[in-house]
Amino acid sequence: MEPHPPPTLLGPLFGLADAARLLDDRARLQGMLDFEAALARAEAAVGVIPAAAAGPIAAKAKAELFDLAALAAATAQAGNPAIPMVKQLTAKVAADDTLAARYVHWGATSQDAMDTGLVLQLRAYLDLIEADLVRLEAALAELARRHRGTLMVGRTWLQQALPLTFGLKAAGWLDAVSRHRTRLRELRPRLLVLQLGGAVGTLASLGGRGLEVTTALAQELGLAAPDLPWHGSRDRVAELATWLGLLTGTLGKMARDWSLLMQTELGEVLEPAGEGKGGSSTMPHKRNPVAAAVVLAAATRAPGLVATLLAGMVQEHERGLGGWHAEWEALPELALLAAGALRHTALTMEGLEVDPAAMRAGLATTRGLIMAEAVQMALGARLGRQEAHGLMERAAKQAVAEGQDLGEVLRRMPEVAAELSGPELDRLLDPAGYTGSTEAFIDRALATRQAGS
Amino acid sequence: MEPHPPPTLLGPLFGLADAARLLDDRARLQGMLDFEAALARAEAAVGVIPAAAAGPIAAKAKAELFDLAALAAATAQAGNPAIPMVKQLTAKVAADDTLAARYVHWGATSQDAMDTGLVLQLRAYLDLIEADLVRLEAALAELARRHRGTLMVGRTWLQQALPLTFGLKAAGWLDAVSRHRTRLRELRPRLLVLQLGGAVGTLASLGGRGLEVTTALAQELGLAAPDLPWHGSRDRVAELATWLGLLTGTLGKMARDWSLLMQTELGEVLEPAGEGKGGSSTMPHKRNPVAAAVVLAAATRAPGLVATLLAGMVQEHERGLGGWHAEWEALPELALLAAGALRHTALTMEGLEVDPAAMRAGLATTRGLIMAEAVQMALGARLGRQEAHGLMERAAKQAVAEGQDLGEVLRRMPEVAAELSGPELDRLLDPAGYTGSTEAFIDRALATRQAGS
Amino acid sequence: MEPHPPPTLLGPLFGLADAARLLDDRARLQGMLDFEAALARAEAAVGVIPAAAAGPIAAKAKAELFDLAALAAATAQAGNPAIPMVKQLTAKVAADDTLAARYVHWGATSQDAMDTGLVLQLRAYLDLIEADLVRLEAALAELARRHRGTLMVGRTWLQQALPLTFGLKAAGWLDAVSRHRTRLRELRPRLLVLQLGGAVGTLASLGGRGLEVTTALAQELGLAAPDLPWHGSRDRVAELATWLGLLTGTLGKMARDWSLLMQTELGEVLEPAGEGKGGSSTMPHKRNPVAAAVVLAAATRAPGLVATLLAGMVQEHERGLGGWHAEWEALPELALLAAGALRHTALTMEGLEVDPAAMRAGLATTRGLIMAEAVQMALGARLGRQEAHGLMERAAKQAVAEGQDLGEVLRRMPEVAAELSGPELDRLLDPAGYTGSTEAFIDRALATRQAGS
Amino acid sequence: MEPHPPPTLLGPLFGLADAARLLDDRARLQGMLDFEAALARAEAAVGVIPAAAAGPIAAKAKAELFDLAALAAATAQAGNPAIPMVKQLTAKVAADDTLAARYVHWGATSQDAMDTGLVLQLRAYLDLIEADLVRLEAALAELARRHRGTLMVGRTWLQQALPLTFGLKAAGWLDAVSRHRTRLRELRPRLLVLQLGGAVGTLASLGGRGLEVTTALAQELGLAAPDLPWHGSRDRVAELATWLGLLTGTLGKMARDWSLLMQTELGEVLEPAGEGKGGSSTMPHKRNPVAAAVVLAAATRAPGLVATLLAGMVQEHERGLGGWHAEWEALPELALLAAGALRHTALTMEGLEVDPAAMRAGLATTRGLIMAEAVQMALGARLGRQEAHGLMERAAKQAVAEGQDLGEVLRRMPEVAAELSGPELDRLLDPAGYTGSTEAFIDRALATRQAGS
Repeated sequence: MEPHPPPTLLGPLFGLADAARLLDDRARLQGMLDFEAALARAEAAVGVIPAAAAGPIAAKAKAELFDLAALAAATAQAGNPAIPMVKQLTAKVAADDTLAARYVHWGATSQDAMDTGLVLQLRAYLDLIEADLVRLEAALAELARRHRGTLMVGRTWLQQALPLTFGLKAAGWLDAVSRHRTRLRELRPRLLVLQLGGAVGTLASLGGRGLEVTTALAQELGLAAPDLPWHGSRDRVAELATWLGLLTGTLGKMARDWSLLMQTELGEVLEPAGEGKGGSSTMPHKRNPVAAAVVLAAATRAPGLVATLLAGMVQEHERGLGGWHAEWEALPELALLAAGALRHTALTMEGLEVDPAAMRAGLATTRGLIMAEAVQMALGARLGRQEAHGLMERAAKQAVAEGQDLGEVLRRMPEVAAELSGPELDRLLDPAGYTGSTEAFIDRALATRQAGS
Repeated sequence: MEPHPPPTLLGPLFGLADAARLLDDRARLQGMLDFEAALARAEAAVGVIPAAAAGPIAAKAKAELFDLAALAAATAQAGNPAIPMVKQLTAKVAADDTLAARYVHWGATSQDAMDTGLVLQLRAYLDLIEADLVRLEAALAELARRHRGTLMVGRTWLQQALPLTFGLKAAGWLDAVSRHRTRLRELRPRLLVLQLGGAVGTLASLGGRGLEVTTALAQELGLAAPDLPWHGSRDRVAELATWLGLLTGTLGKMARDWSLLMQTELGEVLEPAGEGKGGSSTMPHKRNPVAAAVVLAAATRAPGLVATLLAGMVQEHERGLGGWHAEWEALPELALLAAGALRHTALTMEGLEVDPAAMRAGLATTRGLIMAEAVQMALGARLGRQEAHGLMERAAKQAVAEGQDLGEVLRRMPEVAAELSGPELDRLLDPAGYTGSTEAFIDRALATRQAGS
Repeated sequence: MEPHPPPTLLGPLFGLADAARLLDDRARLQGMLDFEAALARAEAAVGVIPAAAAGPIAAKAKAELFDLAALAAATAQAGNPAIPMVKQLTAKVAADDTLAARYVHWGATSQDAMDTGLVLQLRAYLDLIEADLVRLEAALAELARRHRGTLMVGRTWLQQALPLTFGLKAAGWLDAVSRHRTRLRELRPRLLVLQLGGAVGTLASLGGRGLEVTTALAQELGLAAPDLPWHGSRDRVAELATWLGLLTGTLGKMARDWSLLMQTELGEVLEPAGEGKGGSSTMPHKRNPVAAAVVLAAATRAPGLVATLLAGMVQEHERGLGGWHAEWEALPELALLAAGALRHTALTMEGLEVDPAAMRAGLATTRGLIMAEAVQMALGARLGRQEAHGLMERAAKQAVAEGQDLGEVLRRMPEVAAELSGPELDRLLDPAGYTGSTEAFIDRALATRQAGS
Repeated sequence: MEPHPPPTLLGPLFGLADAARLLDDRARLQGMLDFEAALARAEAAVGVIPAAAAGPIAAKAKAELFDLAALAAATAQAGNPAIPMVKQLTAKVAADDTLAARYVHWGATSQDAMDTGLVLQLRAYLDLIEADLVRLEAALAELARRHRGTLMVGRTWLQQALPLTFGLKAAGWLDAVSRHRTRLRELRPRLLVLQLGGAVGTLASLGGRGLEVTTALAQELGLAAPDLPWHGSRDRVAELATWLGLLTGTLGKMARDWSLLMQTELGEVLEPAGEGKGGSSTMPHKRNPVAAAVVLAAATRAPGLVATLLAGMVQEHERGLGGWHAEWEALPELALLAAGALRHTALTMEGLEVDPAAMRAGLATTRGLIMAEAVQMALGARLGRQEAHGLMERAAKQAVAEGQDLGEVLRRMPEVAAELSGPELDRLLDPAGYTGSTEAFIDRALATRQAGS
């Protein structure tokens, strides 16, 4: 028996062992063999091949009976792995039962086996991914709930802007992640579809019984039967690639956020610690954001891979040249990267060390300047937006120039004093009093997630 | 009044004038102004700003009142077009009504105006696109019906393979196109969503009334109200980009197909003729596949643009730096390319000149070799797949070597004669008799389209 | 006379007016017309067309005589802009001189005019870009010199790591930028090459005189004559795209750096101030990194555009379908983005506000932890790398846990005291004493730049 | 001893075993170990570490002594493979010599080992690639020479256009390929450069002796010494990626060409036959263009990978987060794909079966229409380009409509007869007489190649 291929040097860092087992060479082979076994059973059931042929074929349709290195070498000659797979399978069946061997791969073409095999692999993969999505949502919901009132600075253009709470940030991440789960639900029925068409998608090789076999085979495999074969229409597969790209984009956004919050100068969150995790070979004090690096690497690589799958859609006639072949390695690679990024993100969110004190400290960095809008809005209600804006701009510049708190500067400005009393100003300068609809937004995101799960 | 910008030199070739008007600079400006007008109305309605302020603001929120060149110059300073737009709008309102001018853009941030404006532009754009999708589907359904029995050669790897009908080819295209319409239906509610968050997405500037304004404004604009602002969560927008990429991929596949069928040596279809359409400056006899060139160019460009939108998703904190800015030109460009490609495809399919005689002639190119599978399947049922395969391989090689019809060669082979009579062989070698489930597949695709429209 | 097209709304932000004038529609048209004028002169000179024909043709080969909107409309029919350009040019020449009109575009094909015209546009563009590269190098060299000793924190993984000087950072940027100038020098002779081949690259239309005309025309235009026409070999053009992609990548790295250094919490540098530059509509105190946003947006978009040009290289036969068309808008767009990003970067570096005090303050953030390596190396020389590493890891953890300076913790550790005296430890903990080869590296980069300019 | 990892299922199809051995996990590890051994030797030579330490370190710096699976697992924790590599290497050295073990990796950082190791891998890889480039050039030169007079149809827009010879086509391919070799020569000195900078590129860990060690180490490894460390400046590496992208684009263009020429309807060339090569599982007569499929798949995938490397250039500060990590798998993947595509192309060109008779037959497809330009040019010289164009357009339409030879139609047109005699017309309609500068162009390309090799 040949085991799953060993991990590559970087595989365990970037990928996810659970996903790798569903997407590696052996799984690819088993996917094709599952197609062959089910095809034989379906054809036997409807009477297209002898009933006795199905068992012997299924008995040999086991990846561990095959020599992957020999298949790899033969693939290089044949142009795809299904051709030598069928040849080897036929030989194995023939060793026990020459009659059954005649009916291996009956009426099918290479791409039928490869596409359906891929769909079977992806079905298992999507279950795995969905479970991790649910897990990530749970972690984010927990962060949103726990930190609904944990004040911190909101930042735009990498500049401190206004206060919010860490719970709102988590709710924003949750909001995006849960849309990906909705999309996944929608694409599943388009992707989990049988491929069976024979050479040019007419199933001529099955005489008039193509539809019958299609129905039986789809049922056998638990897949939907397509209206017609989709050898040249790659939108089903490319759509998954785009979904993986979208998901990875969201994860990359999250990783960018938490890695920025982890900067030595901010220290507002930390990736969970772990034995030997993120240690630097020369700087013992650092906690490197290893998970962020992995997720950001995935987010850097995913767009190019999605572009590859989209570019590959332009395939010739009934079955194309090059475009289809471009999918074979690129899609599993993308799927593995996304799975790795998702797991890293879920683990990070589950174990995230949040430092409310550091967040609080961040609110004081600008000596009140981040509260300028609060004051400006209050002034604006009385003086108009533009005038209030000009006033605050002046105050802010003075505060920066003199190295003073904004509050002090404002208190000294007669135009301000004329409109706002001291206690009013204090209240306006308190971050806790200027979070607007933060809690309502968090509640809405949590409610939607509750409804969706 | 400033009209829509004039078309660029290549715009009318690659783009689509109808779509350009929805996506150009003036439409972008009007989108933002529609946001401002509706914001004022909504805030007046719930009492956040004086009731009297809404009218004067809305009265000036008209793109034709603005100087685009001046806005462009100011945008280069400000970093985004919403800042100078608000400044100019405020000045215009103030000229008539200084009170109302105080309440322009009340509580909102630049990105609220830009994102919501974009969503409004895209709503109109999606209506346009959907209409063209429906039109394309109708044309394809008509081709599928009309040519359900028009025999032609199916090709794989750019080699002649087996017969099918042109109707099946059209049904295959239809099948893919109609999935894109389903996807569009699904993404609409995720995309047609209001953006309103203020600087960091808390709507602090609206005190405790953020949700109230959100609800009123969403209703005013006919958009959905999001659970929370999505400034940093770009999946809504990036999803549209991926959909456009998928659509363009399918259109590219079709254009690849029809341009190959249009090759001088095949001549099985022709793009519709038109005054001056596709003429060559030096070769008067040629009918150049101009539409195919345009669609293939779009399919070459779309993947890179989709990758840009995906890469841009990695945005920092509450509102990011660079990633968001990367969307501003790339998304309209992609949308315009896709619209152009779709219209070109629809027009091509509506007016496609199909030459059944040329298709018939193509079936004879190989002197029977494309019917080898039919014979092989018949032999395989008696001798087994592998043996029949070997036999046919031998016959085919001999036919090629001797320049003879496959039928003649087969008739002379005793192993074949032992299994198949002359009339049986004739029947097996007739393309019309080897189209399998072609008609059933066409019916299924047409039925699904019927159900979906 | 028709002026250059007006700027688009976002053009002045992302692009560069100087470059836009070289790359816009009118420049594209003039490039083609320059080809036609020079072709007529060259053919007249070698006697392929009448000597008297050249003047009248050249007289009309002026973009301002043409109606761009009409050309745009005709382009949509013809499939490329050269066909209607030739038609209009011929009509204009014929109005004055029917004989000369016979010889417009003599022996050439559309792509000859379009490719050569593009090369002429790019020649002017490269001069512009090279000047800005030189300008950027000068600014960086000045920063490297001025800040050779300005201490600051070096950061890896977004964590504070070890000290360096800001001059080294600038020298590192300079080092990369000057390599791009070398590459530019190398690619120029491959790009600035005439295209002249006629329909299929044989110049059959010029009888036996193709080479003669080629030589004369190349000389006329100041371009190199290629060994053979390169209609289908797009590496010359695609190479420029990759160079632009590489350049933009380096600029993006610089913008990422300076935007991170501009974070409110660091404040180590500031983009130069400017009237209305980077102001926020709601946060008067902020100085938004507008230039960084623009450069990062370019760096987000460039990879996808480079991918487009590379994907477009796969063109069919003598002149292709779609791939070439994909270049027409994508290359100028990329060139414009890169020019804009380069100018923004040059201006930023020229006016960068560096705050040495803030940099100094940054060195104290970790209370000595960033000096851990210095101590570790000293200990390592006595105890071995691994042991010293373990010791420092312990000290660092203790310092963090107890909120103390690393120096204090180390002074209390007997294993350390046994190896290092108090003054030795003080010296090791001083950032100024641990900059290694910083100054030597700066000198080397400056010397190379000196040699190269 | 652990051998190189076994091939993946698709590796031998898409990649190249020779290149895989230079780029796989074991080669990656050995690259890093070569760095460590040479570092120890260089540091011992200049006296930074004890002379006796170098030998024991070098003795253990052998990939076959390491457990790749354990390294892979540790890499997932550490965030890069160099950290566990150093740990394991130190342990191995310590087993024999605890003193030497103290000096493993002395003064270096992980990225020094990884980048230099990569450069060493790439040096060997470039030698391999260059040899294959030379081989491809030789094959193309041979085709250009042998077929300098082999007439065939030139095609534009996938339409038959004018005659040329297959030798010119080969010379055009050769022309592009030889430019890639020039580019390779130019980029080598920028890429084959040592990386040594310590944590933040100051080599502070080597005290004042950083440059000395740098020089010695560069000499030891046969690499150039950079002006300063380039941890954050990825243009050296990204440039290779762009070169690989350009090369693959050219190869893709060639594969597109030869696969189109191989179409059943054309049959002008055939990929070389081979045991089991390109056989179809259901269509015994087909010779599938397997090499073209592989090369086109590479050309579909390369643009996205190049985009990834370019996007990854935007790295933070002294050593970045995610961008660098994105290179680790993407660059070897791209390199392997390009190597596979190059070898497939070289083998195809070496063994290409050219069918001059089929090419000749192709010239007759249009019944003279492809010679229209020749007649038009002759007429144009007398009647003017526009008039002649109109005349020929009419003749061509008539010939198509009536299914007649162009010659017959022309002979019957009085406007033509007035200008051209019968024998003149015959000469104009002979493809052999209308190849223009074809042979001169071939000679020029061959001469340049001669000069360059």
